[in-house]
Amino acid sequence: MIRAGIFGATGYAGAELTKILSTHPEVDIIFAASKTHAGKYLNSIHPHAPNILLQDTDKVDLQKADLVFLCLPSSSGMHIAVDALKEGVKVIDLSADFRLDDAAKYKKWYGDTHLAPELLSDAVYGLSEPNRSKLTNAKLVANPGCYPTSVLLPIWPIVINSIFDNSRPIIVDSKSGVSGAGRSPKQHLHFVEVSGNFQPYKIGRVHRHVPEMEQQLANWDPSIPELIFTPHLLPVPRGILSTIYLPIKRGNREDSIRTVLSETYCDEPFIKLLPSSQNASLAHVLHSNICVFGVNLTGDTLIITSAIDNLVKGAAGQAVQNMNIIYGITETCGLT
Amino acid sequence: MIRAGIFGATGYAGAELTKILSTHPEVDIIFAASKTHAGKYLNSIHPHAPNILLQDTDKVDLQKADLVFLCLPSSSGMHIAVDALKEGVKVIDLSADFRLDDAAKYKKWYGDTHLAPELLSDAVYGLSEPNRSKLTNAKLVANPGCYPTSVLLPIWPIVINSIFDNSRPIIVDSKSGVSGAGRSPKQHLHFVEVSGNFQPYKIGRVHRHVPEMEQQLANWDPSIPELIFTPHLLPVPRGILSTIYLPIKRGNREDSIRTVLSETYCDEPFIKLLPSSQNASLAHVLHSNICVFGVNLTGDTLIITSAIDNLVKGAAGQAVQNMNIIYGITETCGLT
Amino acid sequence: MIRAGIFGATGYAGAELTKILSTHPEVDIIFAASKTHAGKYLNSIHPHAPNILLQDTDKVDLQKADLVFLCLPSSSGMHIAVDALKEGVKVIDLSADFRLDDAAKYKKWYGDTHLAPELLSDAVYGLSEPNRSKLTNAKLVANPGCYPTSVLLPIWPIVINSIFDNSRPIIVDSKSGVSGAGRSPKQHLHFVEVSGNFQPYKIGRVHRHVPEMEQQLANWDPSIPELIFTPHLLPVPRGILSTIYLPIKRGNREDSIRTVLSETYCDEPFIKLLPSSQNASLAHVLHSNICVFGVNLTGDTLIITSAIDNLVKGAAGQAVQNMNIIYGITETCGLT
Amino acid sequence: MIRAGIFGATGYAGAELTKILSTHPEVDIIFAASKTHAGKYLNSIHPHAPNILLQDTDKVDLQKADLVFLCLPSSSGMHIAVDALKEGVKVIDLSADFRLDDAAKYKKWYGDTHLAPELLSDAVYGLSEPNRSKLTNAKLVANPGCYPTSVLLPIWPIVINSIFDNSRPIIVDSKSGVSGAGRSPKQHLHFVEVSGNFQPYKIGRVHRHVPEMEQQLANWDPSIPELIFTPHLLPVPRGILSTIYLPIKRGNREDSIRTVLSETYCDEPFIKLLPSSQNASLAHVLHSNICVFGVNLTGDTLIITSAIDNLVKGAAGQAVQNMNIIYGITETCGLT
Repeated sequence: MIRAGIFGATGYAGAELTKILSTHPEVDIIFAASKTHAGKYLNSIHPHAPNILLQDTDKVDLQKADLVFLCLPSSSGMHIAVDALKEGVKVIDLSADFRLDDAAKYKKWYGDTHLAPELLSDAVYGLSEPNRSKLTNAKLVANPGCYPTSVLLPIWPIVINSIFDNSRPIIVDSKSGVSGAGRSPKQHLHFVEVSGNFQPYKIGRVHRHVPEMEQQLANWDPSIPELIFTPHLLPVPRGILSTIYLPIKRGNREDSIRTVLSETYCDEPFIKLLPSSQNASLAHVLHSNICVFGVNLTGDTLIITSAIDNLVKGAAGQAVQNMNIIYGITETCGLT
Repeated sequence: MIRAGIFGATGYAGAELTKILSTHPEVDIIFAASKTHAGKYLNSIHPHAPNILLQDTDKVDLQKADLVFLCLPSSSGMHIAVDALKEGVKVIDLSADFRLDDAAKYKKWYGDTHLAPELLSDAVYGLSEPNRSKLTNAKLVANPGCYPTSVLLPIWPIVINSIFDNSRPIIVDSKSGVSGAGRSPKQHLHFVEVSGNFQPYKIGRVHRHVPEMEQQLANWDPSIPELIFTPHLLPVPRGILSTIYLPIKRGNREDSIRTVLSETYCDEPFIKLLPSSQNASLAHVLHSNICVFGVNLTGDTLIITSAIDNLVKGAAGQAVQNMNIIYGITETCGLT
Repeated sequence: MIRAGIFGATGYAGAELTKILSTHPEVDIIFAASKTHAGKYLNSIHPHAPNILLQDTDKVDLQKADLVFLCLPSSSGMHIAVDALKEGVKVIDLSADFRLDDAAKYKKWYGDTHLAPELLSDAVYGLSEPNRSKLTNAKLVANPGCYPTSVLLPIWPIVINSIFDNSRPIIVDSKSGVSGAGRSPKQHLHFVEVSGNFQPYKIGRVHRHVPEMEQQLANWDPSIPELIFTPHLLPVPRGILSTIYLPIKRGNREDSIRTVLSETYCDEPFIKLLPSSQNASLAHVLHSNICVFGVNLTGDTLIITSAIDNLVKGAAGQAVQNMNIIYGITETCGLT
Repeated sequence: MIRAGIFGATGYAGAELTKILSTHPEVDIIFAASKTHAGKYLNSIHPHAPNILLQDTDKVDLQKADLVFLCLPSSSGMHIAVDALKEGVKVIDLSADFRLDDAAKYKKWYGDTHLAPELLSDAVYGLSEPNRSKLTNAKLVANPGCYPTSVLLPIWPIVINSIFDNSRPIIVDSKSGVSGAGRSPKQHLHFVEVSGNFQPYKIGRVHRHVPEMEQQLANWDPSIPELIFTPHLLPVPRGILSTIYLPIKRGNREDSIRTVLSETYCDEPFIKLLPSSQNASLAHVLHSNICVFGVNLTGDTLIITSAIDNLVKGAAGQAVQNMNIIYGITETCGLT
């Protein structure tokens, strides 16, 4: 049994993770910790979550765990990662702290000085399917952001097979449910402000997930063009749908691109390529770890629609998938 | 032209009121004030509201107004009411500050010492239709709560005609949209917590609107039994539907009760009694000042379904209706 | 392994049932049948459902099954029940066809002549917790309606312990998500009609679930008074919350009633009595087989708030629980 | 007073139009007609609509009207347009019947043979702001589609000022509320299917609004590149937000483009260009005739976010605006 600890168990990703781990047959939850709710039961905060007493973040005994999951705001769990790794405890960090490969970039995008820049090169970016082999021996996993997961998974086979045309920008028009914005009460997340509304935010190249996506894309192909990214806030609690406009070299046909994708992903339990003429929807993926996508070639633009549940494949589910990979457990174990 | 000032213009009721007054043909908005947003334009906060520069609550000149509307949290606008009345400025207060007739009761239910108990007997409870004659000369109007408006309007004719049976409790099962809980960001009003959810709160006799309703009912008939009141939070931005179970003296028939209601309300532009077998719904009333109700006699229980828009007939609309009454303007002026 | 067949697999309850059974460790789905979608895959209709080829309702081989579930509209599956029972195949019917104990009553409420009145006395009403012992040997289970499940479970201990006061009516104010109204497209179920709206329907004693509830209550205590029942349509996809006003004999205290409830249900995995001052909500129960309730004594009226997921404990989940009881499997098997 | 008749008054656009016209100070509604609901009152179908008795479509007397509005499905009102024009009655058609300038194109996209191809060249495309001068003398107005209105209004100044780069496609990623899909009950419009879901449909160049947009763009600049268009179904009742990716010739700066837009639209009451860094949202425009847009230049791609209420500026409101233009009434009359 893997002895797992969870930090930040009361956020939306943390609660989802605790729920998944509580029924995972190979996991013992050693502790679920919270800074602000220690002493309460998790299901007093999330009525559907398991009945687990929350520990004080500052008082848990790291050594009791084989693995800890960090579900904390950016910059606030770095010291825990450092301490855990020193004790030989593996770390899967769901925040952005170890996703960027460069402390200066981190400072620029997240505003904080990185406390452990020496760990950045050790961290494995936990996009499970493309990075499975690196994950096997990972001690520190930087679990990907929700938008990047929805975008990178369908693009990966296109990029590594040099099908895209690098003379035009890649345009990503993403729509996310509200849980992606976190659980803290904020004016723009008030039910009355969101219900019946729909709006874009951080348009162009200003969202923090832009450097994360571009870094990963450049690892796959340094000639990749700039990304244009428009996130929108959907009036739904969960789910992300990204509509991706990918410039394609002339001469590629939809069926050949479809073949590339299906050959890459045919054995993947959590990737589902839809038949021609079908499009991704949130209904395909809610409450599951699946990433579903449809493709449509229009002129020399490939239009990909890609959907995930932001709290599962976009956060807690992919974290558990990465844990399964690290420990050599069946990759679907505990996941649906 | 009536020179009107608005305090608390950025709350949901305040913004709705400012919108209504901005197109009212007999009103000049002299100022719209805010404690926290002075210096901003109202439509930078509420995109659909008029483009009015917000004044500082503490710096507006009361004397420039004929009438001020107070759309402030309980206990925070009492001193403004006192000052305005001293200057000869009329006051319509949308908070609960002047609804209860007794300072001790106010202290018990709202937790604060009343600053102007001497005004309580002067304040007219602004339930427009039953209290129209008192409102004509009112200097201080205590605009009713949203739940009480939905409950008292259909009950009034039943009570004053002694149709009810005072040996059993009146049961009111109310459901309100989220704007009724105010605009401040709170955990339980976060979109993710409300969406897809539904829940009761403050069950029995603990909601602050219970004493407000019972006081008004007792004014109409001192023998009225206790009220049992269960409010629920609906996952919609606005609207209240109350399902009222009213014990009726044996011998009354549905059609005779219906006649009593229709005789009372047939000339009222904002009251709509539905034909037999039809029930109230939010769709009947959203964005209008109308209170719609249906009645159904089952055994000796009269089941009334009553709907209003909590921000219009339940707040800003009824406040404007009361202003129209005070100034002898056509009662529907500026309202729909 | 139990060989199970499903009729009506494409309705909301049928799809939910197929999903639950597809991961149930003791079940083989022998067939999932549909009248209108035979030849398609279930997940082409319900993207989140399992990838099962739908059989033609009229062509499935009943003898291959140990047990069939009927998820069909009222009156349309009676002949299948008759045929199955003849073949020695057990039947769990999620429709209302075998819930009422009298063919005349069925005719009155459902408009059709009952095809198998001789089976009505054999059918066991599948309210799992109160009727567990009868279910053990059941060949034909009449799975309860969604509203009745939410109402009868919390009331049962009160009724059998003679705590209620039979001189006043029991008032049930229920609110249901839209999936309770079925999957057929109808004007009043159109997204635009439901979104932002809320409304009661079939008020008083006219909903088909009234005789079902009264029959069961009378079985427990023939002196039970009439039920007054107001169902409402909630703008959510799933979940039922019933607010029940139960007249109580004077002298009972909330804590003693709470004791009765907790003694009855303390070992039940799917019943959760909330601590004092907490109320049921849909968030407690969505996607689970749990019925949660809170109690509040106000004067001599007990206010019970009770919530279930209408598609799980209110339909497919309770059906699987009943199957587990019949086959002597751990009652929670396959359920959450 | 303009004597106006309405065909198709019970659809969402027809009901919205009837509501607007019923309070328009220069209009007498001579008739509101319906094929399927003649003899009923409009507010028995739309509780918030005016209390108007519906006439039989086939029995109304066209000659009593100065102007008729057609709010009918495509191909079903052409003969009414022909008859009305013969009688000297002006026609504003909210369907697509007279939008395309060519009967063959109509046949291709709408599947029906056009009954009055001779009228196609007379019809004025009712995009109010760009086409105001042509509308002054129009006898037959083809009111624009909802998506095209949201897209063409912000693009127009860019196109006629030759700022765009015609070597790359224009990408339009649009999201529409459900009322845009009409009022007929359909499986995919059932509340349960839409709620919590989000999905694209008719991706690329297959939606009927593509030829409508391309025709209008080509009128402005024949060198315009192909449009790529992805519509999505938003889980809201009304509103459209289009995110438009417009390739721009190098050398243009955001502020100079902003100047072009603001010079074009500064005096337009229904067009609102947002300040730099603000983005359009549905909340800006719901229940109003306003089109709001924000612009953001990223590299050489101009990202425009544009929002309208599909039932107002995208249908009924723009129709009334066009009527006001035709009759020389203040353009904002009756509109908000």
